[in-house]
Amino acid sequence: MNGSLNAQSLAWGRTENNIRALAAYAAARKAEIGPEKVFDFSIGSPSVPPPKCVEEAFRAVLAETDGVELHAYTPAPGLPSLRRAIARQLSERSAAPFDWRQIYVTMGASAGLASFCRAVLLPGEKAVAFAPYFMEYRVFAEAAGGSLVTVPPLGDMQPDLDALASLLDEKVKLVIVNSPNNPSGAALTEASLRRLAALLSDAGRRYGHPIYLLSDEPYRELLFDGRRPLCAADYYDDTVLCYSYSKSLSLPGERIGYLAVSGRMRDAEAVFDAIAGAARACGYINAPSLVQRVVERCLDATAELDVYAENRDLLYGALCSLGFMCIYPDGAFYLFVKSPIPDAVAFSERAKRFELILVPSDDFGVTGYVRLAYCVPREMIERSMAAFAALAKEFGLRAAGD
Amino acid sequence: MNGSLNAQSLAWGRTENNIRALAAYAAARKAEIGPEKVFDFSIGSPSVPPPKCVEEAFRAVLAETDGVELHAYTPAPGLPSLRRAIARQLSERSAAPFDWRQIYVTMGASAGLASFCRAVLLPGEKAVAFAPYFMEYRVFAEAAGGSLVTVPPLGDMQPDLDALASLLDEKVKLVIVNSPNNPSGAALTEASLRRLAALLSDAGRRYGHPIYLLSDEPYRELLFDGRRPLCAADYYDDTVLCYSYSKSLSLPGERIGYLAVSGRMRDAEAVFDAIAGAARACGYINAPSLVQRVVERCLDATAELDVYAENRDLLYGALCSLGFMCIYPDGAFYLFVKSPIPDAVAFSERAKRFELILVPSDDFGVTGYVRLAYCVPREMIERSMAAFAALAKEFGLRAAGD
Repeated sequence: MNGSLNAQSLAWGRTENNIRALAAYAAARKAEIGPEKVFDFSIGSPSVPPPKCVEEAFRAVLAETDGVELHAYTPAPGLPSLRRAIARQLSERSAAPFDWRQIYVTMGASAGLASFCRAVLLPGEKAVAFAPYFMEYRVFAEAAGGSLVTVPPLGDMQPDLDALASLLDEKVKLVIVNSPNNPSGAALTEASLRRLAALLSDAGRRYGHPIYLLSDEPYRELLFDGRRPLCAADYYDDTVLCYSYSKSLSLPGERIGYLAVSGRMRDAEAVFDAIAGAARACGYINAPSLVQRVVERCLDATAELDVYAENRDLLYGALCSLGFMCIYPDGAFYLFVKSPIPDAVAFSERAKRFELILVPSDDFGVTGYVRLAYCVPREMIERSMAAFAALAKEFGLRAAGD
Repeated sequence: MNGSLNAQSLAWGRTENNIRALAAYAAARKAEIGPEKVFDFSIGSPSVPPPKCVEEAFRAVLAETDGVELHAYTPAPGLPSLRRAIARQLSERSAAPFDWRQIYVTMGASAGLASFCRAVLLPGEKAVAFAPYFMEYRVFAEAAGGSLVTVPPLGDMQPDLDALASLLDEKVKLVIVNSPNNPSGAALTEASLRRLAALLSDAGRRYGHPIYLLSDEPYRELLFDGRRPLCAADYYDDTVLCYSYSKSLSLPGERIGYLAVSGRMRDAEAVFDAIAGAARACGYINAPSLVQRVVERCLDATAELDVYAENRDLLYGALCSLGFMCIYPDGAFYLFVKSPIPDAVAFSERAKRFELILVPSDDFGVTGYVRLAYCVPREMIERSMAAFAALAKEFGLRAAGD
């Protein structure tokens, strides 16, 4: 009977999500041998609680707001007060202006990505992403009737812009960047951003239509070593920012974020309207009303993100000194480690023998790496050291100084 | 430049939503002449607060649950404990069984409707709805690559099943019912449901594939005069229930509801997987995690829905006695009133002169009626009486007993 269902939907519903499968394996294993004996680096879900501000805002909003008003529908693009506050904040952080009427509050970054793909892609058109990339980009581009083309990374996980230049044809409508990057932790440099902007401007002129730059930046505030986030809209006019409060406020389950259309975009109003239509077509009504109010009160707050930088230092240092080759993470909360054998899936399987749960990079569009999510308690990282040492030995890695 | 955007998304984003436009007009008019002088029957947003249980659950869940756990991602189809509780509740209320593994917690009914259309429709296939109907059905069917075919109502706003029988062809994959109905307030009778089931079974056998019945029932608990809701799954095996807590718990802005696949459906597991894939393609990650926990604690509670029955009695009685022809509402919180002139849009415009904000039925796929949402304070209905009397006089209606 399955032949009568939508085959694409069925396939997407049945695709094994390796990360969730590994997390489920880890949970089962913890139940079997004890939680302290399993080192689960699979899931990118914040390990630090939301800031005090969020806790207080939930209480205050619930206490102070009339129940009917609090839980009523909001306008589809979000409460005007929240949209104004977001526009103000973005305008302060960037040279490009942001008009609150072109801020669309979404149910998290995924809703924004899916809506934007559907807003701009025509059937047969292409979105481009730089590997390694969030696997759902492909689903969102294909669900919009388009396709995803990917650019393999340079060795340091920076985008290969020469490769991009060679594949920009008239069918490319959209380029997605994700900085700091999941899964590599690498951040886009200013030089890369400038060159990217120049390439897209040239191609847009050549083909007579804008090529939109979608900057997927849920990890914007998770940038270490004193680096300040760059705003893609400062470098390229046809930019849309896609943000989520999942990581900065540790609210992944509450589903809140936004799309912000640069005020410098020539067709900003039309792009906003197309986003609204795309969101409507997906059944989005409004982002959760209570959480909209909470976020509005905590716009400048973040969870204790320093914890992630400390975890990075600990894990990066330890794994390098065991002989693993790691990409130095500029931000986010992932460490990208080169597999000592070409087959990262096989390496991830071998790591399980040491109770180490690592995600093979194949799911992110590159081979030969594993991703370690270090949004975990520091103690777990410390306890995992012996297991990593044994894993290094198993693969004949030479510790520094050996 | 707009030619380079997705034209369908742009059109959906730019379609004036008459209900929202009328509500905006009402808000502006209130600011102008005073809120007590405008009688706004435009918006179907609950006027009674959520039950105490909800208020307490928000507080308790926030106080009792660890912040990281509380706001973490939940599984995409929802928390297992919530899904189990929903399945238990449905199984108690209906003869058909519901398996918790085939309950998909959605971000409200719209998310469920959009996902289900995308789960089952193939390009070129049809969904059928009975007019008057929720206008977004068309958007969701078309966004899934299909189309919406509508069946005009009988005079009492019951579905015309003879008309349905004549248009069931091999391209029809899905029939949507909405009882009690927005905008007419009419509830499906058991006889209609039985005949509908027989028609769909016959057609399914004829064409060699199931025709799914999607029962859109956010007003299930808003059924008056002691009537008990019928469960469509008791009458037809290939049924999926689409529910929302927006009305029963007065939580429209929080976006929570579910799709429940009948345990009697032959391909229940595949249908569930296709729903999961469709939701994934739209960028849905999970329904808001805090609200999932709140709803789980209030599954058997409702807001004070009696208020709506009282409003119905007051408004229906008053308008009938002024000479208006009204459909007797079995439930929901809408009164469907025949326009005294064929053009309901013109009638709605004329009503504005008396500060009465009424939605023309054209938006719901039928002509010649207006919808009055009576989820409003009782005092507003009382204050509106003189305006309705003047409107009746304007159109030469004869009051009962005149």
